[in-house]
Amino acid sequence: MQEFEIYDSKPLVEQVFNYLLTYVIDKKLEVGDKLPNEYELAEMLGVGRSTIREAVKLLVSRNIVEIRRGAGTFVSSKRGMVEDPLGLSMAKDREKLALDLVNVRLMLEPEIAAMAAKNATDEDIENLVRQCDKVESLIRAQKDHTQEDIKLHRYIAKCSKNQVVENLIPIINSSVFVFVNVTNSQLLEETIETHREIVDCIKRRDVEGAKYAMIMHLNHNRKVISKKYNAQ
Amino acid sequence: MQEFEIYDSKPLVEQVFNYLLTYVIDKKLEVGDKLPNEYELAEMLGVGRSTIREAVKLLVSRNIVEIRRGAGTFVSSKRGMVEDPLGLSMAKDREKLALDLVNVRLMLEPEIAAMAAKNATDEDIENLVRQCDKVESLIRAQKDHTQEDIKLHRYIAKCSKNQVVENLIPIINSSVFVFVNVTNSQLLEETIETHREIVDCIKRRDVEGAKYAMIMHLNHNRKVISKKYNAQ
Repeated sequence: MQEFEIYDSKPLVEQVFNYLLTYVIDKKLEVGDKLPNEYELAEMLGVGRSTIREAVKLLVSRNIVEIRRGAGTFVSSKRGMVEDPLGLSMAKDREKLALDLVNVRLMLEPEIAAMAAKNATDEDIENLVRQCDKVESLIRAQKDHTQEDIKLHRYIAKCSKNQVVENLIPIINSSVFVFVNVTNSQLLEETIETHREIVDCIKRRDVEGAKYAMIMHLNHNRKVISKKYNAQ
Repeated sequence: MQEFEIYDSKPLVEQVFNYLLTYVIDKKLEVGDKLPNEYELAEMLGVGRSTIREAVKLLVSRNIVEIRRGAGTFVSSKRGMVEDPLGLSMAKDREKLALDLVNVRLMLEPEIAAMAAKNATDEDIENLVRQCDKVESLIRAQKDHTQEDIKLHRYIAKCSKNQVVENLIPIINSSVFVFVNVTNSQLLEETIETHREIVDCIKRRDVEGAKYAMIMHLNHNRKVISKKYNAQ
């Protein structure tokens, strides 16, 4: 049984919250894994069920676990990530925001592509090629490729093996589509080509090639955004 | 009075939430500004007070406004930012996380320092110098300088005039202190010196100087973290 420090200045609910968070991490629970139920946790920790319930609510609000009614509490697929984490819904000038976002992508993603070429596993590369094909098919079929495009960039970040950028890149790239109204319908061919080049470079471990392919890819977008911003 | 699209597929509470968010942005309300009260909003929007209350709750949960009991609803100083937005509380290897975080800082902050040297206003620079003095005094007095150090890096990001990094840098730098146990007690002199050099370069508009001073500053930290990681 866990000993709670009764002299701890933190409220009991917060202590239980921290304990459960550590539990999820230390037991290496994965997305979809089930936590012990309320009764078991109350027993394990020697606290009341209402305290457990409040702590679990905190975990839910932080997107760490999710409750499936009648089934129990599970590790959330959102992995602790929240909506609009950058607070960009507060931004005032959307055209400027679009430019700021692509500038931040240019600081991060070329470096990430280089790290991906260095650190990707063979399995990573298979996933990358498959995802690249998927985006290309959607574009060719004139369907919306936004979500799959974001996923491709997330996969590249995953290949880098830097666990911060794996979470950071989807946040930034989703922001582009949530907060900015960018029509890049004129960039479809460029998107297909430069995506393909990035993935090819990663595949053949061409570190610099991957970096500069990513710069080209992002700069196609930047040029469109910059033109809009300057036309304001 | 605001006309709500009754055929809008979004629930009424969400429509009111979006309306209020736009209201805060369009009226250019600043941190601490007061919103109209529940009665006034209900009247303005032609919806029930319970709908207003639910929408305001959503704004509170997103850290966009805060309720001060008996006083009213105010624009929150958290400016729409949330706790642990990168979901790093789920990270398993803390030593690796420390290295990943400093690597991400190295992708972003040198570029940001360069942009700061280019775009800072005279007022920005005054604030920067004051904040740099503050951090130095705390270090000299052997007091905890963490929060003021994070603030200095946020001020530098603010000087860049890229509104994404202004929100992003505090998130990343707070994560360093929340999730990573880095004692850089041996780096106090280096911290004072390199902070001073960064601020001096920004002050005299030395774009490259600011960039490379930031690289030096971060690399002092990186070396300590890297040694720990490799000693695992």
